[in-house]
Amino acid sequence: MAKQPELDDFRVPFFEDGKKNSKFSLDAFDPASKPFSTGSKDSDKARLSEIGEKLDQQQERLHSQQKRRVLLVLQGMDTSGKDGTIRAVFHEVDPLGLRIVPFKAPTPVELAHDFLWRVHSQAPAAGELTIFNRSHYEDLLVPTVLGTLDAKAFEARCRHIRQFEALLADSGTTIIKCMLHISKDEQRTRLQARIDDPSKHWKFDVSDLEARKQWDAYQSAYRDALAATSTDYAPWYVIPADSKTHRNVMVAELLLRTFETLQLDYPPPKESLKGVKVE
Amino acid sequence: MAKQPELDDFRVPFFEDGKKNSKFSLDAFDPASKPFSTGSKDSDKARLSEIGEKLDQQQERLHSQQKRRVLLVLQGMDTSGKDGTIRAVFHEVDPLGLRIVPFKAPTPVELAHDFLWRVHSQAPAAGELTIFNRSHYEDLLVPTVLGTLDAKAFEARCRHIRQFEALLADSGTTIIKCMLHISKDEQRTRLQARIDDPSKHWKFDVSDLEARKQWDAYQSAYRDALAATSTDYAPWYVIPADSKTHRNVMVAELLLRTFETLQLDYPPPKESLKGVKVE
Repeated sequence: MAKQPELDDFRVPFFEDGKKNSKFSLDAFDPASKPFSTGSKDSDKARLSEIGEKLDQQQERLHSQQKRRVLLVLQGMDTSGKDGTIRAVFHEVDPLGLRIVPFKAPTPVELAHDFLWRVHSQAPAAGELTIFNRSHYEDLLVPTVLGTLDAKAFEARCRHIRQFEALLADSGTTIIKCMLHISKDEQRTRLQARIDDPSKHWKFDVSDLEARKQWDAYQSAYRDALAATSTDYAPWYVIPADSKTHRNVMVAELLLRTFETLQLDYPPPKESLKGVKVE
Repeated sequence: MAKQPELDDFRVPFFEDGKKNSKFSLDAFDPASKPFSTGSKDSDKARLSEIGEKLDQQQERLHSQQKRRVLLVLQGMDTSGKDGTIRAVFHEVDPLGLRIVPFKAPTPVELAHDFLWRVHSQAPAAGELTIFNRSHYEDLLVPTVLGTLDAKAFEARCRHIRQFEALLADSGTTIIKCMLHISKDEQRTRLQARIDDPSKHWKFDVSDLEARKQWDAYQSAYRDALAATSTDYAPWYVIPADSKTHRNVMVAELLLRTFETLQLDYPPPKESLKGVKVE
């Protein structure tokens, strides 16, 4: 087993105010690479299962304390594997301790509010581990590609996001954001597989093909969004995701190490219960 | 393997308007019995795992259709195993397809509304499988035992519940309600075990001991609540739950058979995708 690289190498450099042009580029990350693979698919699956059990324990501690909150944000192009990651990484975690929030195209009521309104209402409560399956970042990406959000408005939204995430962090929320990074070729393979299997058509939306035509525009919007919103309190990580197994292991490792830095423990025993006999 | 009994034998007789005194009695059900056990703990666990995988498939079909909704309501005395049931029965089910809603003591804002207000907002959406961990039935049980809900108000709440559940059912929601039925002795054992293990004290609330003192009043309130709200569109089942393994298998069987009556299938292939090549 080769020495594992540092997770920090996949962290998007933190945004610095006044510094307009971050040198960060998505092209520096090979979607097909498997830096956190343990060597084989089998050993990766074993590792994932091992991490899953540890995540279950960490989540129970989080819940027992009812103090801190953990938020995992998952973003990525269509077919990048957001659903699959959730299924695989959290298989061993007690469903009682998880809350998964999918963000779809906003409804008229949601659109009648500011873009963070619906997101704020879903922020994790004390003791919760919450996963955003897509998120407020869609409100940067989609309108940018559609041309309805100009550069100034984009920057304003990024500033609002940084401030919103700072509020969550200051209130005890640990935030980790993952961009599942696939190649354009891998997306073609996955979309084609869905089309070629009629039983999978229900997973397929024709708009996915439209979005694919805007691949470069989305990649560019992702780059700008990540560069402007990666902070020490809410860092972005780029997850090479052409390999599903690698993607799962890397997200799981990242989450576990983040949990470990919190040094969560169970609350102390209650003195008042000592020697109590139930009648 | 002995012939399994009918699930209907554990269903609370349906409420009939005008018939005040249902002969239904919780005492008719032995909490220590294991009618749906397959013979041994090991074979029960194997059966549970098998059902779990089938539930996962059923849930995917439910999700793919985006039409029907399924709601499982879990009630029971403290330590009856609501949390444990959720953990065990849904271990194999994709966390993406589950929404678990715990109902705690109502907040001031919730109390400022009618008792079904907070419940209605958590009803399952199209394609969702939702589990209520406690529910609107607490609003029958607790105030009855505390003496703040008289017989007339109790009957009014039961009527509102029947009408509310009829609304959900008419809108495509399949509702199953389970009372996890444990004996007073078994509760003593479980509460004592939590007290004797200081690492489990965080799970323990001193109010659990107070509620235990009202055991008979709670059993009576449960009986009346179940008798007045078991309907063909939202039936109650009594689950013998002194054995955790049996409890899990029986709830899982019940849910699976209910799913099977829905005869869910995947949506048909989309003609428009036939022969499409992704570029």
